[in-house]
Amino acid sequence: MIRIGVAGSGSGSNFQAILDAIEEDGLPVEVVCVISDHADAGILVKARRAGIPAHHVNPAPYRTKLDGEAERLAIRMFQEAGAECIVLAGFMLMIKSGLLRAFPNRVLNIHPSLLPAFPGLEAWKQAVDYGAKVSGCTVHFVDEGMDTGPIIVQKAVPVLPGDTPGDLHARILEQEHIAYPEALRWLAEGRLTLDGRRVQTPG
Amino acid sequence: MIRIGVAGSGSGSNFQAILDAIEEDGLPVEVVCVISDHADAGILVKARRAGIPAHHVNPAPYRTKLDGEAERLAIRMFQEAGAECIVLAGFMLMIKSGLLRAFPNRVLNIHPSLLPAFPGLEAWKQAVDYGAKVSGCTVHFVDEGMDTGPIIVQKAVPVLPGDTPGDLHARILEQEHIAYPEALRWLAEGRLTLDGRRVQTPG
Repeated sequence: MIRIGVAGSGSGSNFQAILDAIEEDGLPVEVVCVISDHADAGILVKARRAGIPAHHVNPAPYRTKLDGEAERLAIRMFQEAGAECIVLAGFMLMIKSGLLRAFPNRVLNIHPSLLPAFPGLEAWKQAVDYGAKVSGCTVHFVDEGMDTGPIIVQKAVPVLPGDTPGDLHARILEQEHIAYPEALRWLAEGRLTLDGRRVQTPG
Repeated sequence: MIRIGVAGSGSGSNFQAILDAIEEDGLPVEVVCVISDHADAGILVKARRAGIPAHHVNPAPYRTKLDGEAERLAIRMFQEAGAECIVLAGFMLMIKSGLLRAFPNRVLNIHPSLLPAFPGLEAWKQAVDYGAKVSGCTVHFVDEGMDTGPIIVQKAVPVLPGDTPGDLHARILEQEHIAYPEALRWLAEGRLTLDGRRVQTPG
């Protein structure tokens, strides 16, 4: 069993997939705290509905990173809730060194491409524009770089003729909802080991 | 039916896969000429055994690119053999603009990764060192860049726990031998269209 804090900016579909995996598949994870940089984000609504402490953290004066006072507040909330690991689930702010130092090798992210291909924003659109024929998603430990950390799980999906970016995004999301619980199960069961930038996994 | 010239530096396993697909699956391709920068390359042996004109082209004074006199010689050999399209099959020299101008949008390459991830040499080793969990192969049109041209086919393979670079390379090669005939069939049947850097394909 591992206690996780979750940070998200949007509807919280990955957060919901984690809750479902806890409920339906016995994923040995307890979500102890959810934060969002948007006061009206769906992820906060879903958390409160599930009885999980949910907080808005205003990133101001920053718009693109969790830093300064907002970072300190988020760290305190996660620590006071007893989080051992931080799960970014559609969190749109860059993570800075303060959070990484508070949870060393214990901040996870999911990215909608097969990294190192298509880091950054709207990776599904990047993939379609590039003309890739395969894309997917990546669960990885967060490091100081942009989508560069050690990879835990990747799932591939085809890019089909005529796909819009939205079509591809939907297909990738389905795999995200499988990949994140898989990575969290291995983490909770102590079955992930870091070997340089390579993550040894059971499968 | 399309007539192709093939260039390779090694054993010619992709070339053999193309010959097998012609023989066994009715791939509508005729190989009219094979060249290699290595006089004793396996690909030349395989070509001669199959009764296909096979030539050594010495790249000197260059070591890493097909340019100058060697490029002119290769173009002349391909043209005199009636090649409509050039297929790079493990060819280790960089292709320059002369060949690309002689066969516009008609030079194909296969690369052992899911581009744009891991361009360049020993892509399978790059993938293992990076800790990727999915890799694969890419058939693409060649442009002036290094492994940057429009993508025709990609096939994904898992990177498994304990994989050596050689293990992954072998798994990728199996998919290369499927991907290249697939791309050539679409090309021969006139079912590939270029839309910017995106290739419209039937599947």
